[in-house]
Amino acid sequence: MNKGLLLVLSGPSGVGKGTVCSALRKCAPELVYSVSATTRSPRAGELDGVNYFFKSREQFQDMIQNDQLLEYAEYVGNYYGTPRDFVQKTLDQGLDIILEIEVQGALKVKEKFPQGVFVFLMPPSLQELQQRIVGRGTESEETIRHRMNAAREEINLMQHYDYAVVNDRIESACSRIQAIITAEHCKRERVMTELLEGVQL
Amino acid sequence: MNKGLLLVLSGPSGVGKGTVCSALRKCAPELVYSVSATTRSPRAGELDGVNYFFKSREQFQDMIQNDQLLEYAEYVGNYYGTPRDFVQKTLDQGLDIILEIEVQGALKVKEKFPQGVFVFLMPPSLQELQQRIVGRGTESEETIRHRMNAAREEINLMQHYDYAVVNDRIESACSRIQAIITAEHCKRERVMTELLEGVQL
Repeated sequence: MNKGLLLVLSGPSGVGKGTVCSALRKCAPELVYSVSATTRSPRAGELDGVNYFFKSREQFQDMIQNDQLLEYAEYVGNYYGTPRDFVQKTLDQGLDIILEIEVQGALKVKEKFPQGVFVFLMPPSLQELQQRIVGRGTESEETIRHRMNAAREEINLMQHYDYAVVNDRIESACSRIQAIITAEHCKRERVMTELLEGVQL
Repeated sequence: MNKGLLLVLSGPSGVGKGTVCSALRKCAPELVYSVSATTRSPRAGELDGVNYFFKSREQFQDMIQNDQLLEYAEYVGNYYGTPRDFVQKTLDQGLDIILEIEVQGALKVKEKFPQGVFVFLMPPSLQELQQRIVGRGTESEETIRHRMNAAREEINLMQHYDYAVVNDRIESACSRIQAIITAEHCKRERVMTELLEGVQL
């Protein structure tokens, strides 16, 4: 059986991670989506194990203690985190799993799960930056400097990732992410490991 | 402008490299196919620069001397080789180029052009090997040993490649190769290099 892979989809806030993930759910229904654990109360219609794993504060702190989270953070008095167990069980079933997460969380996941595939969703503005900067020079130096600072920060974040996908059109971003998953399954090390599993050559 | 990439498609003889390449020409018409140089005479209907670059023995030896070939070999008294110039000009235009070649040639190309993407086309028999070996044991030890020897040789070759694509169905192999090309264009190093080209951040 092919083992699944964990694809971590991240990127700067506002880049459209959630929108791309929703689109992926439609065009790639074979993918599993990571379910977070949280200590906040369920809202109307939210189901345990579907929208979130709802935990008490004590339960969540036990999970932290026992290294059962790939990452966690506290927002507005509530804990949110990624249960390692759900990810691992999905991979063991041979299914691929997607985790959508902000940049700081992605870096923590990378520490605990370096074998994941880390995809940085990139604003098209960053790609257009070069053309604009080396372009006709109709913008003030101030504006250019401001943009270059913003770009420098985003590029600094990007360097921890395996792939960078421009979110120019949602469908293009989705098909690039699907191509990355297919290609990763064809990586020679992965194919060889699977071939040799349990075989003495 | 995005720079193109060189995809080297190789694998054991009989695996179907040519068939997959022909299918790719139809489903991926945007790809350029590497044209070999040869000292053999053109056959009826063959065009210089389309089927081959036809060269005299002297011209070919000059190309060898001047390091103008990514690899070459002599078969039945004629030289065959891959002109570096054609590959480089295609890449500089931002186009992707495919080189279909046997395993020894691919390894030589890798020495001269390590930035290529090296894809090993794998017979489905190799993938089925494990299931068969660990299967119900209805085959003789002799048969199993013979198959394992063959598999060992193929796996030894495979380790020099970046990807391994099973040629189970031609359409599947083609779409995996196309996914590899798309994913390689999204590799973070590549995207960052393109972003930073000519920009001082």
